[in-house]
Amino acid sequence: MRIAVLGVGLIGGSIGLAAREWIDGAEVVGFGRKPERLDRAVELGALDRATTDLAEALAGAEACFACGPVGVLPDLVERALAAAPEACVVTDVGSTKRRIVELITDQRFVGGHPIAGAETAGVENARADLFQGATWYLTPSERSSGLLYERLHRLVVELGARPIAIDAETHDRLLATVSHVPHVVANVLVAQAARALDEQGETLPRVGPSFRDATRVAGANTDIWTDIYLSNAESIAAEVEETARRLGDVAATLRAGDRGALAEWNEAARGDRRRLLEADLAGGPVHELRVPVPNRPGVVAQLALALGRAGVNIVDMALAPAPDMRSGAITLWIAGDEAATRAKAVIDGLDFGDAVEP
Amino acid sequence: MRIAVLGVGLIGGSIGLAAREWIDGAEVVGFGRKPERLDRAVELGALDRATTDLAEALAGAEACFACGPVGVLPDLVERALAAAPEACVVTDVGSTKRRIVELITDQRFVGGHPIAGAETAGVENARADLFQGATWYLTPSERSSGLLYERLHRLVVELGARPIAIDAETHDRLLATVSHVPHVVANVLVAQAARALDEQGETLPRVGPSFRDATRVAGANTDIWTDIYLSNAESIAAEVEETARRLGDVAATLRAGDRGALAEWNEAARGDRRRLLEADLAGGPVHELRVPVPNRPGVVAQLALALGRAGVNIVDMALAPAPDMRSGAITLWIAGDEAATRAKAVIDGLDFGDAVEP
Repeated sequence: MRIAVLGVGLIGGSIGLAAREWIDGAEVVGFGRKPERLDRAVELGALDRATTDLAEALAGAEACFACGPVGVLPDLVERALAAAPEACVVTDVGSTKRRIVELITDQRFVGGHPIAGAETAGVENARADLFQGATWYLTPSERSSGLLYERLHRLVVELGARPIAIDAETHDRLLATVSHVPHVVANVLVAQAARALDEQGETLPRVGPSFRDATRVAGANTDIWTDIYLSNAESIAAEVEETARRLGDVAATLRAGDRGALAEWNEAARGDRRRLLEADLAGGPVHELRVPVPNRPGVVAQLALALGRAGVNIVDMALAPAPDMRSGAITLWIAGDEAATRAKAVIDGLDFGDAVEP
Repeated sequence: MRIAVLGVGLIGGSIGLAAREWIDGAEVVGFGRKPERLDRAVELGALDRATTDLAEALAGAEACFACGPVGVLPDLVERALAAAPEACVVTDVGSTKRRIVELITDQRFVGGHPIAGAETAGVENARADLFQGATWYLTPSERSSGLLYERLHRLVVELGARPIAIDAETHDRLLATVSHVPHVVANVLVAQAARALDEQGETLPRVGPSFRDATRVAGANTDIWTDIYLSNAESIAAEVEETARRLGDVAATLRAGDRGALAEWNEAARGDRRRLLEADLAGGPVHELRVPVPNRPGVVAQLALALGRAGVNIVDMALAPAPDMRSGAITLWIAGDEAATRAKAVIDGLDFGDAVEP
């Protein structure tokens, strides 16, 4: 089966590597604008051959993956469909789906979105196992060919992923909730604090770890994120308005001074966070361990190394340096009762304070 | 000088240790309800002597630090003032100030708030240097005695901190911005995502690192946080409403599909975050380094250990595991050009991907 990969970065390169490793008789043809990048992808084993000519890439293809920034995908997919054979399934890997599914009405198109690899880029980081066990959303519309959808589904399984069919609108709303809204909120919180910095200058307290965490993604890559914001504008706007509405409710409860309601709201949030972490990890109940540590170079190393030796993997961690930057605490989240018990024993054997579950 | 410390946990214990170490002729008398805890504080050197009798603790005192949860402080300070000598300055260490400053009209009272130690608790973690270099807000009112304010200011300097006078209302608004609002937002975001989890079940995508970071403090200790929310309700409500208003503005820009405005807003956020980090650290410009790594036990250790050996301190870090939990990236924030260059060289010498400034 000939597979065309349009755009050979982390995702395109990994599709090529995985297809060549796990799909019998796969021949992967890469398309891109930069010959040196294509050469590198061939060299790394991600492609059988490469071309800067789109029609050549699609000649005789049975499947086509359009891999690129969200902003260029509709145009790239249109051009691919114009060049693709009648029996070729064309999909994309963009992180928002409603817009492209509305724009592209060809029965050979099925939208897709593998949840993988967002944190690095470039074909140099491509791996055959990038999609192993990953969710790969597919967003067929009522126009999509059943036959071609089935082929794409099978390909995605063969690449190692877990395909989940979902309508484009639900997909975009979910992504807004778990990814896009936190980015919007981060931007808003830094703007608000920067105003306070301007007004108060030196008086502004060192920001707490809660602020640091909540705003880590503020001002993420503008090109990428402007594309994402625009391509999912309606869902993000709806979810952001929902966030604003909920904040308004909290403000009202605060002004009413209702202790019972505040306590209940906070307890519910505690339960919600735990449920989300557990749904996310499927590794058993998540334990939180807090360890007081001196904030010197190497302390994270000492802790992580000891846990690594004991075979404990850290699901999430947060550093909270004290204002003097000389001491602080590390909070660790560990999945599974047994792993957490082991972690606690390891930590208690170090020369830090004892680990507590707060 | 006799100093009464009411409540001997992390903060009270550290005040005792610091006073005994650095204040000539200091005699620290501790008050608390639990004799065994007081005994332990004496044993650790935080107190010269201890008592469960408030009047006894205050007899002959020239200064009194009320250390306890925000909710009990007004009552504790009232009782301390009733028992304290005429020339004794009484302060507290609560994280919100407007309410207590409104309630306590005695000229011997000056509100205080050391920014230290929030991340751990208990006298076992008390240290003489907890306040070294830390901001210690003082919130004198027009009623406060100038003489006693001056004494408190001097004591705070002797404890190692940097006193900053600020009116209680501004203090509470700033703390709302950099600490309380992120907690409210975290609670709201998990509630919103949990609703999506209920509606979509299995279909919910693994949450991204942005969501994980933004919601790490969701459902923080309900007793402590209900007290904080109530004692700073008005400022938090005002700031939360401001956040909601800004979110509404973003939603409008999104619906308008205004690419230029979105890009400008995101760039501004990027600048705001950098300014805040730099104001916060005063350690030179902050560099962000992203390192692709395999997500196996010990990898954080290997990285942090190598940087520790090179004398590089990590200001902030974020792990972004890929969905398969087998690979990912670590983002590091390092203060200072020279340290960042050194860090990059160290990382490039490891068997990970090269560190990039994204």
